Amino acid sequence: MAGAATYHRDVPVTSDVSSTVCVVTGGLGFIGSNLCHELVRQGATVRVVDALVDGLGGDRRNLAGLDVDVLEAEIDDPGVADAIAGADLIFNLAGQVSHTASMRDPLRDLHLNTITHVSFLEMVRHVNPGARIVHTSTRQVYGRPLRLPVDELHPTHPMDVNGVAKLAGEQLHLVYHTAHDLATTSLRLTNVYGPRQRLTSDELGFLPVFMRKALLGEQIRIFGDGGQRRDCLFVSDVVDALLVATAPEAVGRVFNVGHVIDHSLAEIAEAMVEVTGSTGGVQLVPWPNEDQRIDIGSFHTDGTTIAETLGWKAATTLDDGLQATVTFYRGHPWYLSST
Amino acid sequence: MAGAATYHRDVPVTSDVSSTVCVVTGGLGFIGSNLCHELVRQGATVRVVDALVDGLGGDRRNLAGLDVDVLEAEIDDPGVADAIAGADLIFNLAGQVSHTASMRDPLRDLHLNTITHVSFLEMVRHVNPGARIVHTSTRQVYGRPLRLPVDELHPTHPMDVNGVAKLAGEQLHLVYHTAHDLATTSLRLTNVYGPRQRLTSDELGFLPVFMRKALLGEQIRIFGDGGQRRDCLFVSDVVDALLVATAPEAVGRVFNVGHVIDHSLAEIAEAMVEVTGSTGGVQLVPWPNEDQRIDIGSFHTDGTTIAETLGWKAATTLDDGLQATVTFYRGHPWYLSST
Repeated sequence: MAGAATYHRDVPVTSDVSSTVCVVTGGLGFIGSNLCHELVRQGATVRVVDALVDGLGGDRRNLAGLDVDVLEAEIDDPGVADAIAGADLIFNLAGQVSHTASMRDPLRDLHLNTITHVSFLEMVRHVNPGARIVHTSTRQVYGRPLRLPVDELHPTHPMDVNGVAKLAGEQLHLVYHTAHDLATTSLRLTNVYGPRQRLTSDELGFLPVFMRKALLGEQIRIFGDGGQRRDCLFVSDVVDALLVATAPEAVGRVFNVGHVIDHSLAEIAEAMVEVTGSTGGVQLVPWPNEDQRIDIGSFHTDGTTIAETLGWKAATTLDDGLQATVTFYRGHPWYLSST
Repeated sequence: MAGAATYHRDVPVTSDVSSTVCVVTGGLGFIGSNLCHELVRQGATVRVVDALVDGLGGDRRNLAGLDVDVLEAEIDDPGVADAIAGADLIFNLAGQVSHTASMRDPLRDLHLNTITHVSFLEMVRHVNPGARIVHTSTRQVYGRPLRLPVDELHPTHPMDVNGVAKLAGEQLHLVYHTAHDLATTSLRLTNVYGPRQRLTSDELGFLPVFMRKALLGEQIRIFGDGGQRRDCLFVSDVVDALLVATAPEAVGRVFNVGHVIDHSLAEIAEAMVEVTGSTGGVQLVPWPNEDQRIDIGSFHTDGTTIAETLGWKAATTLDDGLQATVTFYRGHPWYLSST
């Protein structure tokens, strides 16, 4: 990936969505709401479908003041057909992201990440087969990497039910392209942070937990030696990736979406302490047995395919992204107390 | 795979099951019933769980005269817990195998190949966590091969809902090993033929359709130029593979199960015409558009991993297997008229 470390974009990354009608499923959630804000800013008409499923990231306040239609429904609800009809772009972000919740209630995870998506795709197929569909998958589909960085041809061996269910959801989108000619794309996202992420759950990934602790001045605890590495994405970069993924060249394909720079968990935690000025510090603690079993070690995304095909790469450094994130939450303190 | 083409087995392939209690889900179906016959022959106590789902391969006559307990239930039925309790070996073969049926009714396929398996694994986990579990997956999880032969590290890009659902089912078995320490193994089977296969459906693969046509003296029709290649497995070889897969070295792993010799579809059809003496012959016909979309071209299994790990390779040539198959159906003519 030539010049990747400089964060320069090779081509303009944002498609023109100004005159489009867009559906965003999961639009009240973390990534979905940030996408809605950007779509509205660019002049798109936005319809949100979100079930506000208990325990997930959805909250009506994420779209406060924004001129969008919100349908509170699961994506397989028959009423969703009306939202889909006439849409140009469908961003299918609805789903459950928690590893731990998926192990506690596997059937619920499969319902939210796989089963409802089949019904949704069937609905798109019958109501609006010409729509452009971008789905969000996850790097969890790879499981424990056999090699680093991880490209799209790396075998997929998910370590938890969530990874299994997301992979099935992603593959169903591609099957509906191959078999039924729907214009689908799926993006395998690495760990994402930024504004409008639910901070008060301990089950939505380590980044929002670390961020909450740092903002509250509490100690950040890291399992193991803190040397595990991750490439983290600022949510605005993900929004850019979702927009460029509507390009015709992306139809029928899966792309990794990650960052060229990776950091150890200890570095990420220390950066949060630094940016927030937290006095809670960072502590290394032994792995709980159950969590260690499904841990995947270090991960680093190989983003060559999306860079070469669509000209996208992450533009935001960890320090810049964390600074913007902290500024946002200091201006929106309810994220720290909401349940 | 040294000496593979000679079909010699490097090590004895059959584990001693004489004093075991075995559960076979899908035990009234094609592969399941052949497994039951072999288990009983070796002295095992066999409990069958089979829902006799309409359109699949299950038929009580497949086990006629055999001393086994049969529970007619889906594998997620709470009553299955009693069958699982105290079992040494669980062969989890229940599922739906039809590409076309999965595209017609995707939710049903996901129910039969994925969702019910989660509930089944949860039941095993709570009732009999020490049982040895062997699950059957399919080469369909690979989709259209990027290279031949196809080993277990080849990317999985299923081309139909059935492939997606079977892959999820397989991965769930492995997640329950990693996370919950169940002793699971999954076998990715290539195309299988032999006694006790349902011949009267056109949706259970090309091999039973070809066999029915040849036995009835009807013309065998092949889509395309007949040059597409497949490695076909005689069902007794699959039964052997299921038994050797109970070895401790196989726990937590996925293995390809195929044949070292592949043949073109035209060769396979001609061999059936030859063995049966059919006067119907073979005709090449153009692809129906919908089928061609999800066709995967040629496939050839790389079986090196199971050969090196468990000493298994297919022992039966296509000619020998077809001869045994024809002899069986000539002695059991109801397979040609049953619906």
